[in-house]
Amino acid sequence: MNHPNLLGKLHALFAPSTVAVIGASENPAKLGSHVMKSLKEGGFEGLIVPVNPGSAKIMGTPALPSIASFEGEIDLAVIVLPARAVLGVVEECGQKGVKAMILITAGFKEIDDPSGTVLQQKLAERANALRIPVIGPNTFGMVNRHKGLNASFTPEFSMLEMGPIALVSQSGGISHLLAFMAMRQDVRIGKVIGLGNRLNIDFAEMTRYLKDDPDTAVVLLYLEGLEDPRALMEAASAYRGKKPIIAYKTGRGETGDQASRSHTGTLAGSRPIYEGGLKQAGIFFAASTEALLDLGKAMATCPLPRGPRVAILSGQAGPAMAACDTCQAEGLQVANFEPATQEIIHGLLPPLALRSNPVDMGPAWYDSEAIGGIVKAVMADGNVDGILILMMFASANRDAIYGLSGVLSEWNQQKPVVGCLVSPPGIWDEAIYRMERERALVNLPTPERAANVMAAIWKYARMLEDKGWR
Amino acid sequence: MNHPNLLGKLHALFAPSTVAVIGASENPAKLGSHVMKSLKEGGFEGLIVPVNPGSAKIMGTPALPSIASFEGEIDLAVIVLPARAVLGVVEECGQKGVKAMILITAGFKEIDDPSGTVLQQKLAERANALRIPVIGPNTFGMVNRHKGLNASFTPEFSMLEMGPIALVSQSGGISHLLAFMAMRQDVRIGKVIGLGNRLNIDFAEMTRYLKDDPDTAVVLLYLEGLEDPRALMEAASAYRGKKPIIAYKTGRGETGDQASRSHTGTLAGSRPIYEGGLKQAGIFFAASTEALLDLGKAMATCPLPRGPRVAILSGQAGPAMAACDTCQAEGLQVANFEPATQEIIHGLLPPLALRSNPVDMGPAWYDSEAIGGIVKAVMADGNVDGILILMMFASANRDAIYGLSGVLSEWNQQKPVVGCLVSPPGIWDEAIYRMERERALVNLPTPERAANVMAAIWKYARMLEDKGWR
Repeated sequence: MNHPNLLGKLHALFAPSTVAVIGASENPAKLGSHVMKSLKEGGFEGLIVPVNPGSAKIMGTPALPSIASFEGEIDLAVIVLPARAVLGVVEECGQKGVKAMILITAGFKEIDDPSGTVLQQKLAERANALRIPVIGPNTFGMVNRHKGLNASFTPEFSMLEMGPIALVSQSGGISHLLAFMAMRQDVRIGKVIGLGNRLNIDFAEMTRYLKDDPDTAVVLLYLEGLEDPRALMEAASAYRGKKPIIAYKTGRGETGDQASRSHTGTLAGSRPIYEGGLKQAGIFFAASTEALLDLGKAMATCPLPRGPRVAILSGQAGPAMAACDTCQAEGLQVANFEPATQEIIHGLLPPLALRSNPVDMGPAWYDSEAIGGIVKAVMADGNVDGILILMMFASANRDAIYGLSGVLSEWNQQKPVVGCLVSPPGIWDEAIYRMERERALVNLPTPERAANVMAAIWKYARMLEDKGWR
Repeated sequence: MNHPNLLGKLHALFAPSTVAVIGASENPAKLGSHVMKSLKEGGFEGLIVPVNPGSAKIMGTPALPSIASFEGEIDLAVIVLPARAVLGVVEECGQKGVKAMILITAGFKEIDDPSGTVLQQKLAERANALRIPVIGPNTFGMVNRHKGLNASFTPEFSMLEMGPIALVSQSGGISHLLAFMAMRQDVRIGKVIGLGNRLNIDFAEMTRYLKDDPDTAVVLLYLEGLEDPRALMEAASAYRGKKPIIAYKTGRGETGDQASRSHTGTLAGSRPIYEGGLKQAGIFFAASTEALLDLGKAMATCPLPRGPRVAILSGQAGPAMAACDTCQAEGLQVANFEPATQEIIHGLLPPLALRSNPVDMGPAWYDSEAIGGIVKAVMADGNVDGILILMMFASANRDAIYGLSGVLSEWNQQKPVVGCLVSPPGIWDEAIYRMERERALVNLPTPERAANVMAAIWKYARMLEDKGWR
C-alpha cells in the first residue's frame, strides 16, 4: 500500500452510513444514473446523497450542487465524472472529510496517451496526502451484499445472493462474468470489488482487509498484472490457512500480456515468476473462471478431506464412471470400504450391478430409506475421506432426492460431500439448492467438475499440511 | 450388427404410427406409468396402445389384455415387464409383426448372476430370428423430438428443444445428464437413444442409421465398452466428414473399467486401443460431458474455420485475455488484421485501450453502430478465420447487444463465430438465444469454453483436411 494508514478506513468503504454520488444523473445514457439505480434498489439502508449542480432531485432523492453543501458526514463518495474533473473533486472530498472513494471514471493509466498516467500519479499523491483509500479509477465499483450496498454501475449485482465469498478482481468483465455465473449456479457471493487501476488500494491491501472480515470465509482473486507481487505474498502469508485464497491469473501468452498492459496499465508479467511466490504464500491457483467459482463454492461449504480416499455413490452408473476417471487422473483414490460398510450396502441393495465402490444406488430409486442408509454407512466409514454423490433426477426417481436430503443435512460436516445432482430446469432445483444452503453438500453441474473439485480441495488440504498450517 | 437386415426397420423405431406399451400402468411407482406419461404428454400424434391384462383403461386410453387383441398393425412395442416375462412377449411381438422394440426391462447381462447373460443370449437369438431390432434391454428408452415421440420412462425429455443433434449413449445417467444440461444451455437435441445392453442394436448400427437421417446433422456418442469396435469404425468411416461424430468415452482407469463391466455387461477396455482406431475412422473425441455438449452445439451451428487465425472482440478486456490465453495454449493464433480493418476500427473506437487484436469494444458500449461496424470489418478480413465475441451485458451496456444481433444475423456464415455473451439470469437470455437460433453464433458460458470450442472445431477441420474429406 502506498500509504499504510489507509487500511483502517476501508471499513467506511464496505459499511458506510452516507454515500454521495458525485456525477449522479437521471439520464440512462450516463453511468451516474446506473450508479444511482444500483444504490437505491440494492437494499442499502443508509443515506444516499446525489450530487449534481444541474438537478434539484435525482430519481426522487434531493440532490445537492456539491458535497460541501451537505450538512452531515459523508463516509463514501462514488465518483462518476469526466477524468478532467476528478482532481478537483478529490480536493473537495478531502476538505469534507470523506473517508473512502470509489472512482469509476476511466481515462487514466490505462489509456494510450501518457497524460493519463501523469494524471493518475497526481491523483494518487493527493489521495495519499489526504489519507483517502480509493477503489479505482477505471472500475465498475464495488458491492457488499452484507450491507445491501451496491456501489457500482450495474444494478444487477444486487441479484447476487449474499454469502461468504469475496471476489477481488482486476477486471470488470471478469467480475460481471463470475457474478452472473454465480447467480445461475447458486454460488453465494457477498462482496465483489473491482480494483481497476489501483490508485492506492491494490490486491495486497484488499487481501489484508478481508482476512479479518467476519462476513468473508473465502477470498477469490482475479489477477492480470501486479506491480508489487511481494506485498500480496506478505498479505497472503498472514492468512496461514485461516481462510482460503484462490486465484485465477490470465495474461500468460504474449498477446494477453500486451493486452493486460493496455487494460489496467500493468504488464501481466510472465506467469511462472509470480506464481511460484504466490503459491509459496498459500494462494491456491484455479485454471479457469469456471474452476475458480467451483472451488470458491466448495471451500465456502465443505470441510477439507483428511486424505485422498473417495467414495463414489451414484444413482446411475455412467456418471460414476466419469467421476471415477477424473478422480484417478487427478490423484484421488477410489476407497476400499470397511467390511461393515460393505455388509450394510449388500443388505440394502439387491444383488445387481455395482455394490462395491463405486456404488450404483439406482436399484434403490424408490427406496429413500435404503439410499439414506447407504450414504450414512459410507460417511461413517474410516476408509473414506470424501464422498461424491452423483444422481440425475426425473419423475421416475424423484423420491431418491428426499432420501438424500435428510441424511446429508443430519450429517455433521466431518467429511466433504461433493454432489452432482442434476434435474431438468425448474424441477427440484429448489430441493437441491436447499441442501447446499444447509451445507449438506456442494453441488456441481457435471460429474467431472464434482470430481475435480474434490481433487482440488484435497490438494489444498495437502498444501496446508505441508506448511504446518493444519 | 447381429442381423444385417435390421437396419431398414429402424425407421419404425423413430417414426412409428402405433406404439404399444406392454406393461403400461397407472401406478406411479411403476416405470410403466412413466412411459405412458412420456408418450401421452410428449406430443406424439400416432396411436398409443397400453397393454395390461388387469386394466380396461390406463390414463384415459383404452387398454388391451395383449397385443394379439389389437386389430391394426403395431410399429413399435415398448416393454416394461419383469425380465422373466420378456421372452414370451418377444414371441408375441413376432407373431403380431411388430417392427421394432424398446426393452426397458433390466436384469440381463448387466447383473452379477450368470442367468442374466443366458437370458439375454436367448432373447437375442429370438429377436434376430424374428428380425426385430431391439433397443435395450436395461435402458430408459428413446426420444425422437422430431416426431414428438418420447418412448422413455422420463417425461421430462420432452422439454428438449428439437434440433439437429442426435445423442447415442450407453448410459441412461449420462443421457439424462446431457439432456438436462442441454435444456439449461439452449442446446437443441432431436434424438436421444439409450442403447443399454445392446441386444442387437449397437453403436455401429445406430451410427449407420443416423448417417442418412435428414433430421440429424451431428452425432454424439457416449461410450463405455464396445464388443466390436471395428464395426463402429466401419460405420463412422462411411461418413467421410459428411456429418461430425463426436465421442466421449469413460472407463479409462481400472476401477471405471470394472464398473463398466457391471454397468452394461461390457468391459470398457483400455482406452488407447480403441481410441486410435476410432479417430482413424473420423470420430472426434471430447474430454468431458461438458466438452461433448459444447462441441455438439458448435458443430450444429457453425461453419468450420479455414485456418487457425482468430479475432477476439470483447466488450471488456478481462474475458478477452482469458480467451487469448486459451487460444494460444490450444494452437490457435491471434490474427493480425489487414490494414483496412485496422483503419476502420481506429475510426470507430476512441484512442483508448485495445484496438488491435484483441479489440476491446467497451468504449463503444453506447454505440451499437460502431460495434456493428467493427464486427463487420473483422468478419470481412482475409486474415481472420474465426471470430470470438465476448461480452458481459448489464444495464449500462445493454444497447450493445442489439448492435451485435443485427450484424451477426446478416452475416453469411462463412466463418465461425463463437460467443461468450453472458447476462444476469432472465435478462436478455432470450435475445442471445435468438441469435443462436438464427445461427448467427454459437454461445458458450465462459471465455475459456468459447476458445476451447474454436480450437476444437479447427482441429476437427484439420483432421478432415488431412483425410482429404474437405
